[in-house]
Amino acid sequence: MLAPFFALAALLLTPPALADGLVDNVNGMTLDENGQVVRFTGILFARDGRITALLNSGQKRPKKVEWKMDMGGKTLVPGMIDGHGHFMGLGQQLLMLDLSATTSLDAALGKIRDYAASNPTKWVLGGGWNQEKWQLGRFPTAAELDGAEGERPVWLERVDGHAGWANSRALALAGITAATKDPAGGRIERDKAGKPTGVLVDGAMALLTKVIPHATPRERNSAFLAAQERLLSLGITATADMGTSVEDWLTYRRMGDLDLLKVRILGYAGGVDAALTIAGQGPTPWLYGDRLKLGGIKLYADGALGSRGAWLKADYADAPGQKGLGFLSDDQLLNLMIRGSMDGFQIAVHAIGDRANQQVLDAIEVLSDTYKDDRRWRIEHAQIVDPKDLPRFGKFGTIASMQPVHQTSDRMMAEARLGPDRLKGAYAWRSMLQNGAKLAFGSDYPVESPDPWAGWATSFTRMDAEGQPFGGWRPEEVLTREQGWAAFTTGAAYAAFAEGKIGRLAPGLQADFLILDRDPLLATPSDLRATKVLETWVGGNRAWQRK
Amino acid sequence: MLAPFFALAALLLTPPALADGLVDNVNGMTLDENGQVVRFTGILFARDGRITALLNSGQKRPKKVEWKMDMGGKTLVPGMIDGHGHFMGLGQQLLMLDLSATTSLDAALGKIRDYAASNPTKWVLGGGWNQEKWQLGRFPTAAELDGAEGERPVWLERVDGHAGWANSRALALAGITAATKDPAGGRIERDKAGKPTGVLVDGAMALLTKVIPHATPRERNSAFLAAQERLLSLGITATADMGTSVEDWLTYRRMGDLDLLKVRILGYAGGVDAALTIAGQGPTPWLYGDRLKLGGIKLYADGALGSRGAWLKADYADAPGQKGLGFLSDDQLLNLMIRGSMDGFQIAVHAIGDRANQQVLDAIEVLSDTYKDDRRWRIEHAQIVDPKDLPRFGKFGTIASMQPVHQTSDRMMAEARLGPDRLKGAYAWRSMLQNGAKLAFGSDYPVESPDPWAGWATSFTRMDAEGQPFGGWRPEEVLTREQGWAAFTTGAAYAAFAEGKIGRLAPGLQADFLILDRDPLLATPSDLRATKVLETWVGGNRAWQRK
Repeated sequence: MLAPFFALAALLLTPPALADGLVDNVNGMTLDENGQVVRFTGILFARDGRITALLNSGQKRPKKVEWKMDMGGKTLVPGMIDGHGHFMGLGQQLLMLDLSATTSLDAALGKIRDYAASNPTKWVLGGGWNQEKWQLGRFPTAAELDGAEGERPVWLERVDGHAGWANSRALALAGITAATKDPAGGRIERDKAGKPTGVLVDGAMALLTKVIPHATPRERNSAFLAAQERLLSLGITATADMGTSVEDWLTYRRMGDLDLLKVRILGYAGGVDAALTIAGQGPTPWLYGDRLKLGGIKLYADGALGSRGAWLKADYADAPGQKGLGFLSDDQLLNLMIRGSMDGFQIAVHAIGDRANQQVLDAIEVLSDTYKDDRRWRIEHAQIVDPKDLPRFGKFGTIASMQPVHQTSDRMMAEARLGPDRLKGAYAWRSMLQNGAKLAFGSDYPVESPDPWAGWATSFTRMDAEGQPFGGWRPEEVLTREQGWAAFTTGAAYAAFAEGKIGRLAPGLQADFLILDRDPLLATPSDLRATKVLETWVGGNRAWQRK
Repeated sequence: MLAPFFALAALLLTPPALADGLVDNVNGMTLDENGQVVRFTGILFARDGRITALLNSGQKRPKKVEWKMDMGGKTLVPGMIDGHGHFMGLGQQLLMLDLSATTSLDAALGKIRDYAASNPTKWVLGGGWNQEKWQLGRFPTAAELDGAEGERPVWLERVDGHAGWANSRALALAGITAATKDPAGGRIERDKAGKPTGVLVDGAMALLTKVIPHATPRERNSAFLAAQERLLSLGITATADMGTSVEDWLTYRRMGDLDLLKVRILGYAGGVDAALTIAGQGPTPWLYGDRLKLGGIKLYADGALGSRGAWLKADYADAPGQKGLGFLSDDQLLNLMIRGSMDGFQIAVHAIGDRANQQVLDAIEVLSDTYKDDRRWRIEHAQIVDPKDLPRFGKFGTIASMQPVHQTSDRMMAEARLGPDRLKGAYAWRSMLQNGAKLAFGSDYPVESPDPWAGWATSFTRMDAEGQPFGGWRPEEVLTREQGWAAFTTGAAYAAFAEGKIGRLAPGLQADFLILDRDPLLATPSDLRATKVLETWVGGNRAWQRK
């Protein structure tokens, strides 16, 4: 593979006239467009934030740079891209009660009590709980929650966002009683007498969330800044935003207008109507120096595995008679995908269960007949895929937008939900690549931490932070370290039609890079997880620095 | 008054380095910041669209300009500013049925029939009718409208936007029957039996408009472009937009993002919530090269005179027992003004009747105690003011944002509504100035035509296009020609905190100017009304040219 190197070398021979910044003396590394590692010791970029050259150690530095910085040999890599996150969800979670670290119901109740005592808000809002992690064997109840906070309404979303836990006051405010029927695509958990017990699943959540006061624009501004700080500190320089609402968009615009938008947001509107309201007749241009674009539409084919909302081909192993929920009929899904595609929006469909994945693949097959240009259909999560359906990903250039850490978080639950014999197409990263799918990795924050180093380490080990299970869960599906890196950089960029701007370091692309405290290509998996980002640069500007 | 000339002359001595455009050989004129006329024969501006110098005939031209244009002695004036318009309303009106030229009910019904036949839309929508102009002596009825279009629903707004006329199908779709009660701040016109006759006034309009399908973003884009073309063709380079909605704002953003926004829009959000949703914690910055800003909030204290919705101190002369409608209690108005002011938004309150004007002045008096900085409280229309209240305008630097053409359109109606003895503070432009109010002129388009030349001609004649009434209506309230011009330029700029950017031609300000076919300072009033704009320049770019 000499060709890429020579092409690069040719560019290096001519120090460009526009260059005015040089970050030098680095242990620099990036992937090239063929997935090969390219190394360099200096990076030159112009005032417009784009890279003009990568320099090797022997190469002459241009004499006329406006400024330069010596990094003392530290490691420099491209900024990481999260292929699937919820920007404002992260921000709001950072300002709310976070139960994601709790390992028992009692610990959670204690935390709720403390938070309620120190936050005199009208509602107590939060999330992050996971009854599996508590080893509760059932959902928690409103009565239990009343014990921690009985006067003010409380609403706490499950870690995956597909269920919520209310106290009695909140249920009363929403008017949810034994007489309330389960809405389409949703379920109210009930006792034997039919009385709601406090947890609302998927489509039933809206019965309650509709009575929660909206976040004010001021709160949204604060949430935005909190999320951005978090992402930059972890080395994420660009992120897909899955389900951008009109209010989210207005928040991003306010930040962009005030020059406070540092991270790049690749927006996927929450539905066709939101996309049209925001962007009109087609995707927006890149805004604020390639920092914001509304390019696609996020749709939902099903729910999640934890709450048994994922739509399966066969019954849940641990809930016979249940197959989960398909959110849309085949015609409805097709109709929404056509409405978005007609106006040139990219389509990204959430599909977790094998039945849901099949439905979306069917729709893509139909649409690929009409839309023969480069559409980059995305399936979000693609967690449980019937092995028969795997080859269909490659066939239409479909992007599998997956989240490595879901595999380590979910594996026990997946085994329980599916049983041992239906795990062949589960979290099947390597099979996806072998079947020609394009892979984009992300975290699904705030469902999981946005930490991309944990994601990358997982991608080539299939072991969790504790090294469990030893040797990896279904290790036949591991990627190489470089493949995992690619999915968090070039792959995630490609998945958003942004490969000409971000994802790797090369002349003409944005100078989005990180200074790290270690070399991620040499670190052990546990060392890679412990990576500390020292500096985060976006478009040639230092956007974040460790204090 | 030599000082301003000398200050200008000093600036002219140094041809600036940045200048790269020269429009030369013009009959140039502008007001200066003291309202004096300044003349010049050349205008130099930089690449950023700002003026670098005005040049006199004897003065040397710089040798190194990137381009120049010889205007052959044509007249050049600053762009006109409309201090009060409804941008998207104009655009939508331009795409809808326009009854504003009809002079009888029969002519209107014919036009409705023709339009319905050639527009296969789900609803027949339009506006511009005025039963006064039809000399009908009453409102038109649903039954009459049914004769023109009985199958599809029809909804036609009155010229002032304060009443609407529905056919029976539309009333049925909205569920408006004899049993429907008049909502607060609104009135359903009824026959003796209480049956709705087809016209809904002010607050009652929403009973019907809520069932009309929203304009799609695509239709909004088209409406925007139609409105912009109209304004530029009339020589309007900047306009206040009174009542900007979130969807309006998103439309302006789409246009700005695509570099299709040419005219400058000074946005006043339709209420506090819209302002916060759009702009968050305070006014937006100037966007797109000073072409867009959300700086204020529009509120309503009352309705309009035509529909007897204006709130008067005494009974309507032609409707004893009626005083019109105050939309808000004193506390409500004050509360909304405080909520907006707290976040630094400018407040503009619609007040037409003398009682409404008093209410707003009372509120301003209270608020001026708290907000001692430069707030520029605006009263929109300020049509009928109790002479006792006139001095209160000047006292707190209040801006009277008025529309000269309303005076000529309304004078007969105003005489009928108020009787001969209560006209002393009606459309009292000169008294406003004498009492220290700041005057900003506009058209209230699409209620009136946005044509600023008609407005300017009216301002110093108080005669209409036919020269009626000879000598002017209450001629003691005429302005000088220069005062009228100022209200459409420097005054309207000041009213939007934009006097440092637009409103006159001077170094440092935006090169927003017009090439005209005549000299507006020498033209007779009827010649001034016939002014043809040949070219409209915004920010140093030719944004429109007559074909």
